Amino acid sequence: MGDDAAVRPSIHLNLFAFGCGHHAAAWRAPDSSVDRLGDIAYWEELARTAERGGLDAIFLADGQSVGLDGIDRGPRWFLEPITTLAALARATERIGLVTTVSSTFWTPFHAARQLAGLDHISGGRAGVNVVTSMTDEEARNHSMPALPGHAERYGRAEEFVSALTALWDSWPRSAILADADGAYVDTEQLRPVNHRGEWFDVAGPLNVPQPPQGRPVLFQAGASGPGRDLAARYAEGVYAVAWDLESARAYREDVRDRARRLGRDPDDVVVMPGLVTFVGATEAEARERQRALNELLPVEDSLRQLAFFVGTDTSGWELDAPVPPLPPLEEFTGPQGRYATVLRIIESKRPTVRELLGYLAAGGGHATFVGTPESVADEIERWVDAGAADGFNLMPPALPQGIEDFVDHVVPILQERGRFRRGYAGRTLRSHLAADVVPAG
Amino acid sequence: MGDDAAVRPSIHLNLFAFGCGHHAAAWRAPDSSVDRLGDIAYWEELARTAERGGLDAIFLADGQSVGLDGIDRGPRWFLEPITTLAALARATERIGLVTTVSSTFWTPFHAARQLAGLDHISGGRAGVNVVTSMTDEEARNHSMPALPGHAERYGRAEEFVSALTALWDSWPRSAILADADGAYVDTEQLRPVNHRGEWFDVAGPLNVPQPPQGRPVLFQAGASGPGRDLAARYAEGVYAVAWDLESARAYREDVRDRARRLGRDPDDVVVMPGLVTFVGATEAEARERQRALNELLPVEDSLRQLAFFVGTDTSGWELDAPVPPLPPLEEFTGPQGRYATVLRIIESKRPTVRELLGYLAAGGGHATFVGTPESVADEIERWVDAGAADGFNLMPPALPQGIEDFVDHVVPILQERGRFRRGYAGRTLRSHLAADVVPAG
Ligand SMILES: Cc1cc2nc3c(=O)[nH]c(=O)nc-3n(C[C@H](O)[C@H](O)[C@H](O)COP(=O)(O)O)c2cc1C
Ligand SMILES: Cc1cc2nc3c(=O)[nH]c(=O)nc-3n(C[C@H](O)[C@H](O)[C@H](O)COP(=O)(O)O)c2cc1C
Repeated sequence: MGDDAAVRPSIHLNLFAFGCGHHAAAWRAPDSSVDRLGDIAYWEELARTAERGGLDAIFLADGQSVGLDGIDRGPRWFLEPITTLAALARATERIGLVTTVSSTFWTPFHAARQLAGLDHISGGRAGVNVVTSMTDEEARNHSMPALPGHAERYGRAEEFVSALTALWDSWPRSAILADADGAYVDTEQLRPVNHRGEWFDVAGPLNVPQPPQGRPVLFQAGASGPGRDLAARYAEGVYAVAWDLESARAYREDVRDRARRLGRDPDDVVVMPGLVTFVGATEAEARERQRALNELLPVEDSLRQLAFFVGTDTSGWELDAPVPPLPPLEEFTGPQGRYATVLRIIESKRPTVRELLGYLAAGGGHATFVGTPESVADEIERWVDAGAADGFNLMPPALPQGIEDFVDHVVPILQERGRFRRGYAGRTLRSHLAADVVPAG
Repeated sequence: MGDDAAVRPSIHLNLFAFGCGHHAAAWRAPDSSVDRLGDIAYWEELARTAERGGLDAIFLADGQSVGLDGIDRGPRWFLEPITTLAALARATERIGLVTTVSSTFWTPFHAARQLAGLDHISGGRAGVNVVTSMTDEEARNHSMPALPGHAERYGRAEEFVSALTALWDSWPRSAILADADGAYVDTEQLRPVNHRGEWFDVAGPLNVPQPPQGRPVLFQAGASGPGRDLAARYAEGVYAVAWDLESARAYREDVRDRARRLGRDPDDVVVMPGLVTFVGATEAEARERQRALNELLPVEDSLRQLAFFVGTDTSGWELDAPVPPLPPLEEFTGPQGRYATVLRIIESKRPTVRELLGYLAAGGGHATFVGTPESVADEIERWVDAGAADGFNLMPPALPQGIEDFVDHVVPILQERGRFRRGYAGRTLRSHLAADVVPAG
């Protein structure tokens, strides 16, 4: 342990809880949680495990349609995230509770209110990942014929967030006098919102008094320029996607630059790339876990999807042979992002075809660490020390096992090395995200 | 106990939980719950008390604005009802959880989803009171310049409820195959909604599988013709307003007639008028409790409001003298509903001015029973036996005391008389509303 361990901020760790885990075949395992997805006790168990590990937050993604193309291949959404987190608030005491809200399909008054309510119910642990949504299928559930264009979505998102913050500020706690012989509220202290925008008009004030955190914590997960700008302006946490350290560092630097240019301290924006981990007592055991999940993938389906991503007929590919050579990015005419990810996985891992399908099936382009608790902890430290991350958004391939493994085996090592908090210093999500110092172990 | 006690259905009882209680001055009492309104533990306590009494449900009203005109006179909204009920689901096991949703300001996909989620989280205990909202102030928080007209609101409500039910039916449980070697969902069984209406387009299916109750239970609380029609068509429970038995019976008969004409069994619509109770060991103690709360009313304020209701200068009225004579209903040119209530209270109770203000301050026109547990139980039985009610929506003037008194003292009498269930027969809200038979005590 170096001398300066005592002044290093804690690494941030978030549980991104999703279905039976992030691996597309996780629900097919004999011991999977597929029958428990509608059971709130399952989600409570995940939240409690994450809290036992001292994680910053549990985060629930969200979509506004069933996802007809793919729902036969595995579960996606089941419970609704805001009501789920309200229930989790009462099954936990310290961990942050981060929901996802689509600014394309929600309106600010409802969202501000439910998030303020969640912050009250949880005693200051609410956060919200503002997303702009992705599909026409979602739009068609919300009286729109198709998803609005990218610029329109981000225009609306900017207005949405600005209305949220104004609503959260509109009923200061001090306005409640509760004077038995006089007034309940000092109406002079209520602040009308009077938001008149392109997308929403909101008079305010909110009918929920200011919650414990003042404003619930804002997260963002956009990759585009407008997404990064929104994050730089408002977000206190960013969920990123990066396959390797280099791209993670470039992304984080970019978001920090944008924040700096807007006059914010970049350290106030915690950047957390997604991280898929396969942890075993030995490297071999970790690999075996990964292999066992990959084995459950319906290979023909996955190969067909891969053919689509790489614009190549994959039907003759041998599953247990190395991936055949693919043309360089410049020569590819389809969607570049996913193709670039495939090339990066091939270059860094030299996988067999089946292994490639596995990497794509578990997080699809998010960093993937496979190994012993020590080696996974090493990699985490390496990324953080290289300025590639402030922490990670954990995406366990199978749940609940993946988060139990992480909490029981990786977290103690990070704690011992003085890189992760031992227990919570504060009671609010914002206090967990603050750069609290970890005493050396 | 008569011979037919064994075949009488249980009376239905609902806790309408609101702020510090329904009496406008409840928050001013020295032991009031005014400091606990943002504390979820307070609401849990109310729900647990109601569950201890075997009540059908706890019901939360809702409004979409702070209520600027009046917020200085007492608390109105604090927490948000859907998130609150999601938390209460985990603090209780059997009692129904009924939220309010405005069809004027919500859209069906969000509402259907959160209600289905609540039904899953609670194991089949969710209900929703669909209201059409009341003020321009609410409209201005939702991008509308003013409240839409009555007909438009009910047109939208009809469409809203029809979209809700289609969404709840769209993902049958049997569609989940979870076949480890095959499909997760049988997409053939998903039912597109394809709702294209005047107010909403919703493609569906819902992204929450069918919840335990299939459809969460629908309640309605409208007084107008269109409100009663909506209730008659869809509602399984109706929250009514009636000062006396006669008007309650007329209302109930009318709703039952409308249901019959639509081909429904009128017994499938449980009509519950609101009921304010002051319970004491003696009549005198009950009256003293009522008096003590009335005493806390800022009288000048209340007199000013009354002047407005009755279109008369009340400033010379003596507080502890009988209410001066008022012109008959036919001669009154202002809003008739409230004036009629004032006349009915005066006629039935011959109150002093202060007592009149008290009746109006605690429920404002809802039935009010003041007395011993026996006399209150008698009155409840009398209304039910006269066909004026299937049960009551309890509106305790002060909380938590009002519901504790009722559960500890009135409920046991009703149980002993074979008029109220002893413990729950079923696990779902719908099973509580069904005409379950109470064995004689
Ligand atoms: C970890 C992570 C979680 C995300 N969760 C959601 C989500 O729950 N719902 C959603 O619609 N989009 C989600 N997204 C997508 C992003 O919010 C964003 O829409 C997408 O990355 C495209 O961003 P861009 O338009 O700025 O390029 C997520 C992205 C990441 C990296
Ligand atoms: C017990 C009860 C509870 C009600 N709760 C609400 C409520 O929470 N929010 C609301 O906007 N209206 C509420 N209302 C009002 C009614 O839903 C309805 O809008 C009002 O009675 C006018 O109905 P009408 O337009 O059909 O005459 C309630 C009414 C009753 C009787």
